[in-house]
Amino acid sequence: MTALTDLLAFQRQTEALSSVAERLGWDQETVMPRGAAEQRAEEMGAMEEVLHDRRTDPRIGEWLDAADPQTPADRRAVALIARDYARSSRIPARLASELARLTSLAQGIWAEARAKDAPADFLPTLDQVLMLKREEAACLADGGDLYDALLEDYEPGMTGARLATLFDAMRPRLVALRDDVLGADQPQALKGHFPQETQLRLARACATAFGYDWTRGRMDLAVHPFSSGRWQDSRITTRVVETDPFNCLYSTIHEVGHSSYELGIDPDYAFTPLGRGVSMGVHESQSRIYENQLGRGRAFTGWLFERMSEAFDGLNITDPDAFYATVNRVTPGYIRTESDEVQYNLHVMLRFDLERDLISGRLDTQDLEAAWNARFLKDFGVAVDRPANGVLQDVHWSVGLFGYFPTYALGNVYAGCLNQALRGAVPDLDASLAQGDATPATEWLRENVQRHGGLMTPTAVIESAAGQPIGPDPLLDYLEQKFGRIYGL
Amino acid sequence: MTALTDLLAFQRQTEALSSVAERLGWDQETVMPRGAAEQRAEEMGAMEEVLHDRRTDPRIGEWLDAADPQTPADRRAVALIARDYARSSRIPARLASELARLTSLAQGIWAEARAKDAPADFLPTLDQVLMLKREEAACLADGGDLYDALLEDYEPGMTGARLATLFDAMRPRLVALRDDVLGADQPQALKGHFPQETQLRLARACATAFGYDWTRGRMDLAVHPFSSGRWQDSRITTRVVETDPFNCLYSTIHEVGHSSYELGIDPDYAFTPLGRGVSMGVHESQSRIYENQLGRGRAFTGWLFERMSEAFDGLNITDPDAFYATVNRVTPGYIRTESDEVQYNLHVMLRFDLERDLISGRLDTQDLEAAWNARFLKDFGVAVDRPANGVLQDVHWSVGLFGYFPTYALGNVYAGCLNQALRGAVPDLDASLAQGDATPATEWLRENVQRHGGLMTPTAVIESAAGQPIGPDPLLDYLEQKFGRIYGL
Repeated sequence: MTALTDLLAFQRQTEALSSVAERLGWDQETVMPRGAAEQRAEEMGAMEEVLHDRRTDPRIGEWLDAADPQTPADRRAVALIARDYARSSRIPARLASELARLTSLAQGIWAEARAKDAPADFLPTLDQVLMLKREEAACLADGGDLYDALLEDYEPGMTGARLATLFDAMRPRLVALRDDVLGADQPQALKGHFPQETQLRLARACATAFGYDWTRGRMDLAVHPFSSGRWQDSRITTRVVETDPFNCLYSTIHEVGHSSYELGIDPDYAFTPLGRGVSMGVHESQSRIYENQLGRGRAFTGWLFERMSEAFDGLNITDPDAFYATVNRVTPGYIRTESDEVQYNLHVMLRFDLERDLISGRLDTQDLEAAWNARFLKDFGVAVDRPANGVLQDVHWSVGLFGYFPTYALGNVYAGCLNQALRGAVPDLDASLAQGDATPATEWLRENVQRHGGLMTPTAVIESAAGQPIGPDPLLDYLEQKFGRIYGL
Repeated sequence: MTALTDLLAFQRQTEALSSVAERLGWDQETVMPRGAAEQRAEEMGAMEEVLHDRRTDPRIGEWLDAADPQTPADRRAVALIARDYARSSRIPARLASELARLTSLAQGIWAEARAKDAPADFLPTLDQVLMLKREEAACLADGGDLYDALLEDYEPGMTGARLATLFDAMRPRLVALRDDVLGADQPQALKGHFPQETQLRLARACATAFGYDWTRGRMDLAVHPFSSGRWQDSRITTRVVETDPFNCLYSTIHEVGHSSYELGIDPDYAFTPLGRGVSMGVHESQSRIYENQLGRGRAFTGWLFERMSEAFDGLNITDPDAFYATVNRVTPGYIRTESDEVQYNLHVMLRFDLERDLISGRLDTQDLEAAWNARFLKDFGVAVDRPANGVLQDVHWSVGLFGYFPTYALGNVYAGCLNQALRGAVPDLDASLAQGDATPATEWLRENVQRHGGLMTPTAVIESAAGQPIGPDPLLDYLEQKFGRIYGL
């Protein structure tokens, strides 16, 4: 038992320190004075070095050799520690440090190139990032597929080939739905000026409606909304655009989904590798089902319509059915983050195919812009107007996040499966949602998904909750029905 | 050069990590959700263990042996690292851990005993704390004086004997002034309800008047106001009592003094042992001169009178001279933290004499309450009415802070010396203060005290700024003149 006890005690401290580093990131994005950037970079660097030393500490290898875990939770914890140790140990310190240095630099170069709409200013740097990421992937893959090795950091157990099969099956139906919807009459847009304080008050009401635990969280403003933290302290952020209150309200509900996952994990798993969301895809399934299948459904928008009409002293939309259509309005656009349920996955699939080709070497960075533009025209029916709206729009690749994009669409697929099972298990859910009370949904999700944390694999947790194998049909059926009705298709 | 470079690089990371730990403390006292207490305790514990391991890392000893610093700053940095390393290495891990465990427990026991007014519930625990602190002092003192060894953590270079001489010289004049003032006619008290938002707006205006750098700081609410952080990020906190706006405003100015010291240090010293305030006494000299000699002076209160009259739509005091007297009102009271410029040092001296006797063994904890009460009656002329207003009022001893109290009074003495020199150097200072602009004062303090950080000893930095040896007369002369005039003595 000693090796296991020592291993878990060591891991406990590592988890605590990693939680501190995450809190530091929250501070930076929400409350930190703007003059503190250099200091914070140095503090983060020092924390990362402490964490790196712990993750590659050779004692972990010795403890792992001697540990003999008896319970399922302990066996899984040991397996997760072993996986991370193996991955951390395979990457040479020189490579890790070059990657850290280059990606920190590359993010700034990307931001400038985007502002100037000048891909040529960024692509040579992206090429260097790509070379280092391929080198990293080769260390991790141990002879296997490079892209799969990177994917393992975000969606353990998933492969590029499985994702390609899944996404290729989805694309035609999504492209067809997009064409139909954009060919139909558009719902009215919401118009007006919506003061910040009122938006934030409504955002808090929405978070409460979705069961956010304010004793273990808080809400602040951030430029790009995110959630942060685990166990007893998972905070959300939101942003306010005074002409578009849906931005604030649905960002909030989305982040409540992420935070509720972390806060819903069995408290016994705190400070162990089981004490956090098991993958980015499962995480996104929670934020998306809160935001879309629940938050953008007819029942909840009926409640929201009343609240918003009251809070803003009348809206230009005066009927709850029309309001529901307005909330779910689909408009042409270039930008992934501003996209809707119909088009979002098409944005992601484009990036997935391109990044897989970049990592495999089938695509060169110098051909990337042309490939992006050709693919966008094919899937979206319009030509990219400028690089900032095309190949330069996302930060991800500049910071080395290859393998991250597909988890967004995978999360939507998971959310589709979960929503089908949830509706079967809680047939009168809409009656509660119409009262601004998502409790029956959040309880079902906590019981069937969230509480397990890292205990099961991503596939196992979704399939056990959904009661069927993961597939794209529940999501696609839901989208076709929902938007078919709204747009009278 | 390699040993020195390695030593300073290692120290740089330690400083960054210690700054992270301090930021975590700020988070806990200001924004942390209330349900996150256990988690935070574990995170703090993990950070402390990392820091303790670094501070006692045997490589420091090797680097120190081989280092050959050439510049005054490097020589001083090496000396400060050597001092901390020697102190950390002298305390056995067993004792450090027992002290941490016991003081964390003792704080809770003290709080309960104070709430119940039951010294007997706390004194046996205090006795255990005292035993461990005496053991710690014996490790540190190496045959020397136990109290001096503890004092070294807060006011390096100072001794209990020197403090006793200083305080004994001050006491008769302070007791006499207290008697005279309390025997005279009292100025009017401020009456009314002062809404929180208005108080906070005025507090921000006061902080700005004293030159607080908002790009490297921020202000939040806390139960007990404090300042936190250094270099590019030193934040202040304040509190609001809606019947007493002076509480909020003067807490703010006090904390601006502490933060301005940290923010005023030469940026080249960041991430070195020179990059922080050199002692608690010098720190307190900055907060006190901002709060009292500058903030509670006739010139600045004239400006404040206008601002407050405007913000609160009239006050029950309608004349700036009467307002100045109200700000400086002296009333009888038992509580140190609610005390005024005349009585504050008497509170501190009482604690200093008692704690010095506790550490030397001349006083037993079982006789402590009686000793406190007898001394209070002697210096303040009234009997303590209940233990919560007497021996149980401060948290310090429960958490092992022996040697800390005298730095409060020492800071006042330093502030007296600095004020005399400042007024000589900037003869027209009051003209600026009357306009709500303390810039000429803060610039003089930055140039003569703050920028030096840890470069000089506490005594050296104060004496070089004051242009004379440290003594009690400037403070006592200032108090007698100021309160003599206000009270018509």
